Amino acid sequence: MKKVINAPERVVEEMCRGMELAHSGLLRLIPEHNVLVRADAPVQNKVALVSGGGSGHEPTHGGYVGPGMLDAACAGSVFTSPTPDQMLEATKAVDGGAGVFYVVKNYTGDVLNFEMAGELAEDEGIETDYVVVNDDVAVEDSTYTSGRRGIAGTIFVHKIAGAAAADGRDLAGVKEIAGRVNDNVRSMGMALTSCVPPESGEPIFEIGDDEMEIGMGIHGEPGTERKKIEPADRIVEELLQKVLGDSVDFTSPGSDVAVMLNGLGGTPLMELYVAYAHVADVLMREGVDIYKMAYVGEYMTSLEMAGISVTLLKLDDEMKRYLEAPCDVAAGRPF
Amino acid sequence: MKKVINAPERVVEEMCRGMELAHSGLLRLIPEHNVLVRADAPVQNKVALVSGGGSGHEPTHGGYVGPGMLDAACAGSVFTSPTPDQMLEATKAVDGGAGVFYVVKNYTGDVLNFEMAGELAEDEGIETDYVVVNDDVAVEDSTYTSGRRGIAGTIFVHKIAGAAAADGRDLAGVKEIAGRVNDNVRSMGMALTSCVPPESGEPIFEIGDDEMEIGMGIHGEPGTERKKIEPADRIVEELLQKVLGDSVDFTSPGSDVAVMLNGLGGTPLMELYVAYAHVADVLMREGVDIYKMAYVGEYMTSLEMAGISVTLLKLDDEMKRYLEAPCDVAAGRPF
Repeated sequence: MKKVINAPERVVEEMCRGMELAHSGLLRLIPEHNVLVRADAPVQNKVALVSGGGSGHEPTHGGYVGPGMLDAACAGSVFTSPTPDQMLEATKAVDGGAGVFYVVKNYTGDVLNFEMAGELAEDEGIETDYVVVNDDVAVEDSTYTSGRRGIAGTIFVHKIAGAAAADGRDLAGVKEIAGRVNDNVRSMGMALTSCVPPESGEPIFEIGDDEMEIGMGIHGEPGTERKKIEPADRIVEELLQKVLGDSVDFTSPGSDVAVMLNGLGGTPLMELYVAYAHVADVLMREGVDIYKMAYVGEYMTSLEMAGISVTLLKLDDEMKRYLEAPCDVAAGRPF
Repeated sequence: MKKVINAPERVVEEMCRGMELAHSGLLRLIPEHNVLVRADAPVQNKVALVSGGGSGHEPTHGGYVGPGMLDAACAGSVFTSPTPDQMLEATKAVDGGAGVFYVVKNYTGDVLNFEMAGELAEDEGIETDYVVVNDDVAVEDSTYTSGRRGIAGTIFVHKIAGAAAADGRDLAGVKEIAGRVNDNVRSMGMALTSCVPPESGEPIFEIGDDEMEIGMGIHGEPGTERKKIEPADRIVEELLQKVLGDSVDFTSPGSDVAVMLNGLGGTPLMELYVAYAHVADVLMREGVDIYKMAYVGEYMTSLEMAGISVTLLKLDDEMKRYLEAPCDVAAGRPF
C-alpha cells in the first residue's frame, strides 16, 4: 500500500482536521465526530442541508460544505456509512429552526442511518426530511444497495437544493427540488483499476492489466461488463448510450442539460478532457443541448481508483438559476 | 498501460479540444497548435501573459488561462517543451499592444524555446520579456535543468503576475512582481509511484513497493533520497525542513505565508488533507503565519504519479491583494 498517511485507523480523523485547518474561515470540525459544519452554523431560519457517507470519495462530502451548498457533512470510515449519532450531532449543530434536510446516496447503510438520525432528531424537536439519490443507471440493486446506486449526480443535488435553501425555501420546498433534480439526473461510470482502502491495505477487487469494467460502482461494486480496455471514444459511447437510453429524455426540444465528466481519483485530468471531447461530440450528434460550461474534474472519487463517470442533468429554469447561484465551499475554492 | 485515451499520439490534441469544448465561453483553441487562449484575446493595452510546457501537468497550464491569470498556454507533447512556433502563435494571438510576458518553468527546453519565441516576436514588433521560475529546493541542476527546477510555485506566479497585468501594470512592472514572487516562493516534493507517459506506455522509473523518493521532480527526475515509505507526518517534516531551511525567511515577524499542498495526480484528496494537517502543525510550531486558506489540491501534476509537494510563498501586501483578486479560469471553476 503506497499512501501518504500516518495510520489507517486515523485517516478520516486526520483528514477532517486537515480540512478544518486548511479552510478555517469556512469549516468547523465537531471534535470526536468527524462532522464538518459551516463555520457560521447554525444559520437562523434557513433549512439546513446535511449529507455524508463513507469516506474515500473526497471532495465528497466535506468539500461541499459552505454557504450555498451543505451545512454539514458526516464522514464515516472509508466506504462505511457514518453512524446515526454522527448525523444527529450534525443535525443539532446546523439546525436554525427551519428544519434539516438530508441528502442521502442510495446505499443501504446510509439510508437506514439517516432515517434513524431523523427519528432521533424529531425526538429532540428538530424537523427533518430527506432525499435518496439514485442516479447510477448501471444496475438495479447492488452489493450495498437496493435499487440504483447514488453517485456523482449527488453533487448536483447538493448544489441546487443548497441554493434553494439559501434562497429561503422551506423544508417541503427543498425536498421538492431535491427530488426534482434526482428525477432528472442520470450517471454511469467505469473503472480501470481498483483502489486500496487504508484499513485493509489490499485492492477491493482484482482486474487484469488489459481489462476495464463498465458500470462499476464507487466502492468497487460489480458493473455490467468486464472486458478488454477500449479507446476513450468507445468507452464514452457505451456510457452515454445507457444514460441516454434511460427514462429521462435529454433530447427533448428546448431542454438544456448540465454535463459532468467525473474522475474517480487516479485518472489524470488530461484523460478526463480527452473523454469529455467525445462526450460533447456524442451529445451534439444526439441532439442534446449542453448547458454552458461542463463540469470536468474530480467531484466524487473512489480513493485512487482509475476510471470515469458521466452525469447528465436535465435542467429547468429554476434549476439553472440555483445551479449558477453563488456558493463558497472548499471544493470550489482553488483560488 | 491503463488509460482513458484513444491514441497516444493524439492525447494532447484531444485534451486541448476537450478543454475548449468544456469551457467554450472562456477558452479558444488555436487549431493545429495546441495553444489555448482566452476567448476574448487579445485584450487591448494589457500586458498578456503566456505560459506553457510539456503536457501531463494538468491543470497546468491550460487550466489557468482566463481573466486574471494567463492569456495563453502552449501545450507541448507529454513532458516535452512546446516549440518556439507554438509560443509565437500564442504571442501573436494575445498581444494587445502592451507586450507579452512569458512565465517559464526552469527546464532547459522551455527556457531556450521561450527565448527563441521572444526573439521571433520581437522581429514581428511585439515586445516580450520573461521570468524563469525555479522554486524547487530539492536539487541544484537536474536531468532537464541547469539550476533549480520550477514546480508548483509557478501557479502563484501565474496568479499574482496575472492579476498585476489585469491591474494595468506595464511589461517591466509585471516582470518585477513575477520575479518578486519567484524570489519568495519555495517548494519541495516527493513521489511514491512513477507515472506512465502515453507514448512509451512504460513507467519512467522503477521504485519498490515499499519505497518513496524525496525531492523527486515532476518528470521523475531524481530527488535527494530513496528510502522506505514513512508516515505522512515524517514526510511532511522532511519536506518542510528543506523548504524552511532555504534562503527565504518564512518566520520573520509580520510575514504572512501562502501555503500550497499539491497532489501529483494519483494521490487522493484524503491523503492531501492528512498531510496538510501536519503541514499546519509544523508551520505553527516554527512560527510561520499561514495566510488565510491553504491551497490543497491538484495544481501541478505528473500524470498519475502518486506523491505530494509543499509550496510556501512569503507574501507582501501587494502580493496579497493580487492573490485575492478575482480570476476566471477553468481550474478555478468547479461550480
